[in-house]
Amino acid sequence: MSELLSVLQRCGIAVGEIQGGALAVRSPVDGAELARLRETSPDEVNGSIAKSAAAFLKWRMVPAPVRGELVRLWGEELREARRDIGWIVSIEAGKIIEEGLGEVQEGVDICEFALGLSRQLHGKTIVSERPGHRIMEQYHPLGPVAIITAFNFPSAVFAWNAALALVCGDPVIFKPSEKAVLSGLATFRALERAIARFGDRAPDGLAQIVIGSAPLAEMLVESPSIPLVSATGSTRMGRIVGPKVASRFGKRILELGGNNAMVVTPAADLDMAVRAILFSAVGTAGQRCTSLRRLIVHRSVKAALLAKLLKAYADLRIGNPLVAGTLVGPLIDQRAFDALQHAIATAQQQGGKVLAGGQRMLAEEFPNAWYVRPAIVEMPAQTAIVREETFGPLLYVLAYDAFDEAIAIHNDVPQGLSSCIFSNDLREVETFLSAAGSDCGMANVNIGPSGAEIGGAFGGEKETGGDRESGSDAWKQYMRRTTNTINFSKELPLAQGINFS
Amino acid sequence: MSELLSVLQRCGIAVGEIQGGALAVRSPVDGAELARLRETSPDEVNGSIAKSAAAFLKWRMVPAPVRGELVRLWGEELREARRDIGWIVSIEAGKIIEEGLGEVQEGVDICEFALGLSRQLHGKTIVSERPGHRIMEQYHPLGPVAIITAFNFPSAVFAWNAALALVCGDPVIFKPSEKAVLSGLATFRALERAIARFGDRAPDGLAQIVIGSAPLAEMLVESPSIPLVSATGSTRMGRIVGPKVASRFGKRILELGGNNAMVVTPAADLDMAVRAILFSAVGTAGQRCTSLRRLIVHRSVKAALLAKLLKAYADLRIGNPLVAGTLVGPLIDQRAFDALQHAIATAQQQGGKVLAGGQRMLAEEFPNAWYVRPAIVEMPAQTAIVREETFGPLLYVLAYDAFDEAIAIHNDVPQGLSSCIFSNDLREVETFLSAAGSDCGMANVNIGPSGAEIGGAFGGEKETGGDRESGSDAWKQYMRRTTNTINFSKELPLAQGINFS
Amino acid sequence: MSELLSVLQRCGIAVGEIQGGALAVRSPVDGAELARLRETSPDEVNGSIAKSAAAFLKWRMVPAPVRGELVRLWGEELREARRDIGWIVSIEAGKIIEEGLGEVQEGVDICEFALGLSRQLHGKTIVSERPGHRIMEQYHPLGPVAIITAFNFPSAVFAWNAALALVCGDPVIFKPSEKAVLSGLATFRALERAIARFGDRAPDGLAQIVIGSAPLAEMLVESPSIPLVSATGSTRMGRIVGPKVASRFGKRILELGGNNAMVVTPAADLDMAVRAILFSAVGTAGQRCTSLRRLIVHRSVKAALLAKLLKAYADLRIGNPLVAGTLVGPLIDQRAFDALQHAIATAQQQGGKVLAGGQRMLAEEFPNAWYVRPAIVEMPAQTAIVREETFGPLLYVLAYDAFDEAIAIHNDVPQGLSSCIFSNDLREVETFLSAAGSDCGMANVNIGPSGAEIGGAFGGEKETGGDRESGSDAWKQYMRRTTNTINFSKELPLAQGINFS
Amino acid sequence: MSELLSVLQRCGIAVGEIQGGALAVRSPVDGAELARLRETSPDEVNGSIAKSAAAFLKWRMVPAPVRGELVRLWGEELREARRDIGWIVSIEAGKIIEEGLGEVQEGVDICEFALGLSRQLHGKTIVSERPGHRIMEQYHPLGPVAIITAFNFPSAVFAWNAALALVCGDPVIFKPSEKAVLSGLATFRALERAIARFGDRAPDGLAQIVIGSAPLAEMLVESPSIPLVSATGSTRMGRIVGPKVASRFGKRILELGGNNAMVVTPAADLDMAVRAILFSAVGTAGQRCTSLRRLIVHRSVKAALLAKLLKAYADLRIGNPLVAGTLVGPLIDQRAFDALQHAIATAQQQGGKVLAGGQRMLAEEFPNAWYVRPAIVEMPAQTAIVREETFGPLLYVLAYDAFDEAIAIHNDVPQGLSSCIFSNDLREVETFLSAAGSDCGMANVNIGPSGAEIGGAFGGEKETGGDRESGSDAWKQYMRRTTNTINFSKELPLAQGINFS
Repeated sequence: MSELLSVLQRCGIAVGEIQGGALAVRSPVDGAELARLRETSPDEVNGSIAKSAAAFLKWRMVPAPVRGELVRLWGEELREARRDIGWIVSIEAGKIIEEGLGEVQEGVDICEFALGLSRQLHGKTIVSERPGHRIMEQYHPLGPVAIITAFNFPSAVFAWNAALALVCGDPVIFKPSEKAVLSGLATFRALERAIARFGDRAPDGLAQIVIGSAPLAEMLVESPSIPLVSATGSTRMGRIVGPKVASRFGKRILELGGNNAMVVTPAADLDMAVRAILFSAVGTAGQRCTSLRRLIVHRSVKAALLAKLLKAYADLRIGNPLVAGTLVGPLIDQRAFDALQHAIATAQQQGGKVLAGGQRMLAEEFPNAWYVRPAIVEMPAQTAIVREETFGPLLYVLAYDAFDEAIAIHNDVPQGLSSCIFSNDLREVETFLSAAGSDCGMANVNIGPSGAEIGGAFGGEKETGGDRESGSDAWKQYMRRTTNTINFSKELPLAQGINFS
Repeated sequence: MSELLSVLQRCGIAVGEIQGGALAVRSPVDGAELARLRETSPDEVNGSIAKSAAAFLKWRMVPAPVRGELVRLWGEELREARRDIGWIVSIEAGKIIEEGLGEVQEGVDICEFALGLSRQLHGKTIVSERPGHRIMEQYHPLGPVAIITAFNFPSAVFAWNAALALVCGDPVIFKPSEKAVLSGLATFRALERAIARFGDRAPDGLAQIVIGSAPLAEMLVESPSIPLVSATGSTRMGRIVGPKVASRFGKRILELGGNNAMVVTPAADLDMAVRAILFSAVGTAGQRCTSLRRLIVHRSVKAALLAKLLKAYADLRIGNPLVAGTLVGPLIDQRAFDALQHAIATAQQQGGKVLAGGQRMLAEEFPNAWYVRPAIVEMPAQTAIVREETFGPLLYVLAYDAFDEAIAIHNDVPQGLSSCIFSNDLREVETFLSAAGSDCGMANVNIGPSGAEIGGAFGGEKETGGDRESGSDAWKQYMRRTTNTINFSKELPLAQGINFS
Repeated sequence: MSELLSVLQRCGIAVGEIQGGALAVRSPVDGAELARLRETSPDEVNGSIAKSAAAFLKWRMVPAPVRGELVRLWGEELREARRDIGWIVSIEAGKIIEEGLGEVQEGVDICEFALGLSRQLHGKTIVSERPGHRIMEQYHPLGPVAIITAFNFPSAVFAWNAALALVCGDPVIFKPSEKAVLSGLATFRALERAIARFGDRAPDGLAQIVIGSAPLAEMLVESPSIPLVSATGSTRMGRIVGPKVASRFGKRILELGGNNAMVVTPAADLDMAVRAILFSAVGTAGQRCTSLRRLIVHRSVKAALLAKLLKAYADLRIGNPLVAGTLVGPLIDQRAFDALQHAIATAQQQGGKVLAGGQRMLAEEFPNAWYVRPAIVEMPAQTAIVREETFGPLLYVLAYDAFDEAIAIHNDVPQGLSSCIFSNDLREVETFLSAAGSDCGMANVNIGPSGAEIGGAFGGEKETGGDRESGSDAWKQYMRRTTNTINFSKELPLAQGINFS
Repeated sequence: MSELLSVLQRCGIAVGEIQGGALAVRSPVDGAELARLRETSPDEVNGSIAKSAAAFLKWRMVPAPVRGELVRLWGEELREARRDIGWIVSIEAGKIIEEGLGEVQEGVDICEFALGLSRQLHGKTIVSERPGHRIMEQYHPLGPVAIITAFNFPSAVFAWNAALALVCGDPVIFKPSEKAVLSGLATFRALERAIARFGDRAPDGLAQIVIGSAPLAEMLVESPSIPLVSATGSTRMGRIVGPKVASRFGKRILELGGNNAMVVTPAADLDMAVRAILFSAVGTAGQRCTSLRRLIVHRSVKAALLAKLLKAYADLRIGNPLVAGTLVGPLIDQRAFDALQHAIATAQQQGGKVLAGGQRMLAEEFPNAWYVRPAIVEMPAQTAIVREETFGPLLYVLAYDAFDEAIAIHNDVPQGLSSCIFSNDLREVETFLSAAGSDCGMANVNIGPSGAEIGGAFGGEKETGGDRESGSDAWKQYMRRTTNTINFSKELPLAQGINFS
């Protein structure tokens, strides 16, 4: 425990901060309480919103490349604190340490990407149909951005959003998941250190954090002073947040559920497929939004693939994620465990056959923690339970005969986040990537559905929300666009050749 | 009336179609009934949606440049029918004939623009951080698009949306305003003729029309088979449509109210400003979403500007919009007239002084039509009524002293569609276009807020909806994006350098 | 002959024009003289250059979308005249009629593409590091463009260049190959008709033609009034033109020789490969710049592929290209025939084995024309002659064992235009397209090297010239870019934070 | 002198390196010899080229974001060494220390910009006209890049080019000016330190330096193994390099002479103009390629402007650039001084009147250095000498009456690098930036011609060379583009609908 304190301290979190509050943070590793934090009060939230609105008026006037300098400093701070924050992520979210480090690395990466953007934020110049006129579009800062994140990426998702928002000229208010506050706080503190180094070019209130539960998030969602709400979580949450924000004409970035599948064809390299399945189905104990949940495998290679897969599953090191060599850590809490059990039972009722896993593990060692052996359930068809997202290490296996059938099964779920195919057959691969292929926001080839690079746009279609974070032109969502037509002639011609006189 | 019949016939609308139905279409020109159309039944709407979904599966497989050929043909048809459709727009929506023609020209323009897009629809290729990997993003067809339009642009807004949707691979279902069905129908028939020429590469159900009132529109808004709803209308409507579409994870393009202003500074060319005000405040009888509603003028030039403006208003030719030389036609209906009267009265209660207009005109000649003399109301401050959008030829005049004040007044309304400044002063102009300037989706210089070219993105911020139509990258909203990472190596490295083995 | 006259007349070429001149145009079909045209005199060329420079000053002021209208009209004219121009191309360049028509279709396509561009020509808006500053880049018209084309695409290459140049604001001076003047002239006349319809918005001298031989082309290459020279032809020509233009700081677009190869791997669909080889090796009698010249086939499938290929070659219909069903027309002239013979003989000296073809055909029927049976020569290695481009239907066959070897052979020639692979193996395909793969400007998969669409950029690397025509952002070469930094503040900060006071 | 040694040592340059060689480096500050370096031998140059070609084969396989990491490290090294390198630039090139530091800052900036690019390097995905086909373009590494720089930006221009080249996958060979070798070497050593930290992912020979005179540069220019030559220098040099590179089908980036002007209109803020003139005309002693050389001022404000300007010139602190407060350091050598004298004399012969400056300064204190009082020469017209670039602090003043005349004078020189206007009049400003305005690669408003930010493209038109460095899409020049069409169908349709069977 003293290790926790010293890590937190190095991350800028004082002992006093994690004691005496009402919000208990527990480690899924052993169920022990890590901290008790004070919740932000509703009045404080309102105060933060007001401060953020005031900060916006100043921050938008700071040139974007100068804003980029702040993000560069944040990247430096994250790089510096990588080990510590990664460790906190690991102990608090239950990820293995490698993944905890990888998550902080994503923060570093997005800071560098945003630094590059800070001299771009390109709009277009456009030719006009009228003499002595020109058109251009500019992207301008939008206003305060609320960032509401989930427990499973308690550091990176904040960094993804905040790095872009800050470079785009927007103050941020961060509401981390109650289940992983410390990771969020540590990431936030790194930003605060960067702001301190950046000096008085950063207005007061540029980055703020709100600690507490759903009602505080709702305040952010409903505030007309917050033009953009970025929320990561369940489809259920999105179904509430989306309409609320829409009803006040706000913008939103929703990153909701996934029901990510892999198609394995006869032309696949099965050994590579097995390794990819392993990482994406059991990594983070199946609690990534991009975790692999459905395996759609050609009947001719099903037996061979399953044999390899079951062997690999049997060898999985499950346990304390902080221990080197562990590949599968705990579920976040009992509720997650119960949901998993329920899904497995329901799947069985719907004809499924459990090929592996599902059992609770290490109950004696960790009576208050919820380790589970990753499960594989073979299904006769894509039944109702398969169409749902169960947030844990549960992999459904479905067989297909014709390639079109594989795609039909693939797309026949309400979610649309990530997907992949394993095949070395060009036609199969390109078809999977085509207009008639996967309907997900991400479609990969010979890699799992999980583990996107920050250069591409991240996000999904259908019930996943339809929005994008991270690379490509995702930054545009954090800005407002203005189309400008400038007449520098002495005439006043109308568009479309209209004569009005 | 026989002229109407023959024009309609040339536009492909048979006599039988406009008789005997329950939906009466009246001309605002004289209040006479133009047609009685049969409403589409709810069952038929459901049938159309199903047909559209089926058409999508085929249309998405037609190569985009071939889809472009359909849009090219539509452009030809619109070019051919320009006079006729323009005339129908004029008689049905009450616009002067020049504007009716201009509206059809916008349809021609967007078809040509979409034709160009049909060989672009560019995603990005992106470098990967992993050896033997590459990333690309592709844009794919999205699915059926519902296009719900308003009476004031009964032809062009459909064309804007449908031309892009069709090129992007999406079937369309068009629901024109009940108040301007014929214009919509005529534009739609031109598309049907293009489809006929295009031949069997176009699937059945590629373009469909739904005739009737709000409940039919609601069916489209709520259908999970329609991933994109493009709706033009009031903020009130948007406040309903937005959340409904969001609750089913659909996408939407909302083009809602505007409260568009012009800032006139001491450095303005006042004569140009007057001409611009005239077109944008009284054109279409003030019933454009981009109509000028607020004039924010520097105190030093207010008197001079108003003198010129009142003179110009006094000379306005108001009357039958089909008659050459008319500049101001009728309001769409009595409700519009009443709303205008109400706004003027309220403005007066709030301290306003009517400088001109507001009176009903030509009541004897056209007892069932609602002509009005365009009004100018000087306000002591931007009161509540000024912050509302009144859809008619009512221009509020507000004075300012310092330039910052002008911008503050400008932005202090809930709507955010269009805006402009008249000034030859570079600093003023650039400030108006900057991050600290106009907060509208469109900000023009030395032209009115009205009359955008199709090359730029059209749309507004805040309660205007936040979405974009027409040029720039507006087409992206009609497609789904897929981020593809392709591993063509024999290794399986993870992003962010994670080691999982 | 009377058919020729009437076709020419329909194309706007009068009888008087094709008689009595010094420049004889012969048909490769039968060697008969088609026309005798008057050569443009050097004085006239100088006059044209001066006129073009004057036209530029006006044309650059015509808004780009209006310039787009001219190109739209040209596209209409080409569509109208497609049969006729296609026929002239066929009789004059010896292409089969299908290819003649396809060539005119490319003209239509590029006109439509350019029409779309006419509302884009996008530069970027860029954020500045200094407060109160903004940056943008604009693309502006460049000046007169000389277009020097070769006999083998006498219509399309002019259209490719002129459509872009005109939309970009540049007048054009066209110098068609002496060997195919009529095709160029007919295409040019279609442009003249479009200009006539376009009316007086087009300045005098906007599009001009220069008829004659190399010295006239040199005048264009050397003129300081012509900022851009687009020249298609041999590497030898490019080696002269490039330095000349560079020495006067002009820009150039060079489309020079290709030595295009196909790699056929064991994972190829051999039947598809054979069809692709056929079209790309013998189409246009091997006289496309993108014609297939080298077949690099895996040793394990070589025999099978050659068997199929030889069978297909044996069935080739060789003869009058105007006759339906003919697939291989004549060589352009005796010099081409002699060069082909020389190459075959040299190849044999270098170890090659003639598997098929090479013989003169139809010598009795057409004593003055040069038909040849397409040749296949198997080579033991890529010798010196294989590294040269021989402009005719001569296909070298080379075997490879390891895939890396195939790529090494592929790239080991000085030219870098087009290339392709036939394989259904994803790894092979992606490697071929990767940084370590084909070094050509175009690299295709499962289609031949020939027959690009106009949406992509066309052109090649290394001795092919390095420039691009047609789609993507090729238009940028026809414009000048200007980077604008606008200071609208009252301060004068320096970039990089320099303090100078 | 011991300060020099310790600064050099901190920069990684050992004492041994700067002694005993044949190449003497002198400081323009006092004419003293700073170092004697060994010249690279021709054999060594050939060896470097071969090593670079070998390094390319490996470096192109390193993923771009990993290459970005190298550039990030270089940026760190430059940031660290900023003071030292800035000091060396100052003592070696004679710039004042503020400018020396600014120059290194540009290196830092471009490294960060390139870091951002390292996850972009975007090509386009493009829709195909054929079913089952797709098109994309990729940018791939090009090969070794030679970077030949001039004395006046001995650090930044190398960084500009090398940062982009390295991220794009190209090894670099750097040939700094003989007159400023130490600055180049210090910048290069910072890169070497970054490479050392980067470790063995960097192949041997990734970055190399060649020290010596013109013949060595020529070897690089002529080598077929170097596909891109980036050369900064005089127009005279460019006239040699351009054709040489063209004759071997290489690519080039030429940044040659400028004859940069400022137009001052009656609507200008004269005080701001004076400050801008001062920095851009006398900064770096007028030895920037973007230095202001021509002042085109409206007759009505000429007297007022000149009065202010002459006063400012009279107050200029001229002297040792290392001393705080100095604004004008020495010319680089006597030749520069003589050229300046010659220009002033010629200008006088052509009617010019010397208003200020031209005299040698501090000759007693620094008998071997060439300080000069910046000169202002009023010209009756733009005579021949004004059309030439004289590389020193010589400002010609020309009067104009009508605005069109100002632009005509402005453009009537053979060079086309940078330009600016001082005016607060929107019409003047926009006209200056329009197609009919300045014909330079850079056109600024209310800032001088000098001091570009790295986000925009840097470079000029006409005899300046036509190429671009730094921001926007300048990186594309360092890569080769490949257009890929992929057929994943089982059919083989031809483009343009050609039928060949």
